[in-house]
Amino acid sequence: MSGSDIEVLIEKFARLPGLGPRSARRAVLELIKNKNSLLWPLIQALENTANNTKICTRCGNFDLIDPCNICNDPKRDNTLLCIVEGVADLWALERSGCFKGLYHITGGLLSAIDGIRPEDLNLENLSLKINELNISEVIMALSATLEGQTTAHYLAKFLDDTSVKVSGLARGIPVGGELDFLDDGTLTTALKSRRPL
Amino acid sequence: MSGSDIEVLIEKFARLPGLGPRSARRAVLELIKNKNSLLWPLIQALENTANNTKICTRCGNFDLIDPCNICNDPKRDNTLLCIVEGVADLWALERSGCFKGLYHITGGLLSAIDGIRPEDLNLENLSLKINELNISEVIMALSATLEGQTTAHYLAKFLDDTSVKVSGLARGIPVGGELDFLDDGTLTTALKSRRPL
Repeated sequence: MSGSDIEVLIEKFARLPGLGPRSARRAVLELIKNKNSLLWPLIQALENTANNTKICTRCGNFDLIDPCNICNDPKRDNTLLCIVEGVADLWALERSGCFKGLYHITGGLLSAIDGIRPEDLNLENLSLKINELNISEVIMALSATLEGQTTAHYLAKFLDDTSVKVSGLARGIPVGGELDFLDDGTLTTALKSRRPL
Repeated sequence: MSGSDIEVLIEKFARLPGLGPRSARRAVLELIKNKNSLLWPLIQALENTANNTKICTRCGNFDLIDPCNICNDPKRDNTLLCIVEGVADLWALERSGCFKGLYHITGGLLSAIDGIRPEDLNLENLSLKINELNISEVIMALSATLEGQTTAHYLAKFLDDTSVKVSGLARGIPVGGELDFLDDGTLTTALKSRRPL
């Protein structure tokens, strides 16, 4: 069907999240068709990322420097620490521009089914960081799933002996959400947590 | 939010067909998380493809050799020539395994709106090829769109002075298709082209 190098490349693309064999084939064809404008620049960008990306030893973010730009930024509010599961969540919060504190990435969520225990999470330097950085509030920005909430509760207990306030993201109807399309769980939570207008 | 190298890479990924900013971010994060098992092998595969892929001067296919493996294969039936728009279509036919003849890629479809004229298509060596290769039947495997059918008719006229038989793919209900979900055009064609059982 096609050169083996091309097949190998399609396989590699198909293994990326969000892509399957069909989209991998389309992407690879587009790359081959545009060697100079797409393929070589992509190789260059991948090499730069592979060579220059570091994991921040303080928060776990990916950046070109360690500590990362966020941990390094003197303008960030170092009394607020936001705990997230992964870099994708950190980026999502940064895109929203709503949070100006610091982050800590757990690298996963506790899960009895997947056998992920507290010692598998990146928690070693968390207490240390909280004491060092003058943190007054820890915000759990974890998924509203069983695993996310189990982890949030575990961490709240874990931080019991520190003096920090522990909070979690509000739950309710998402912005733009139509009642008709919301699941029962969200509706129930939104009704229970109703607030005066 | 993230290192500029990472942002550049996400932009490049997001420009590929089938990917958007969100899936590009997910793919790039996965790559950075797995530098040795995913990122470096992907770079290697891209470089191999960039360095080794050639366009077959006979049919227009992408392969590591020119003429490509299909044009070179003595076992292929060189009395049948299948005309397709692009490499993706050639690959689709090869995956199905239903065609054992040779191919010719037009590189596009005639389109008044997009200003694509016969001289913009890869037709130069088509008559030459038909005479040289002992082709007895040319199969138009072009899209069932206005442009595809215009191109098919143009090519049929173009081949009028040769002695080859010209055919086109059958139209009708796709395998597994439920009548309820088919568009009117397909239903009409299927009814008009009904055949004895």
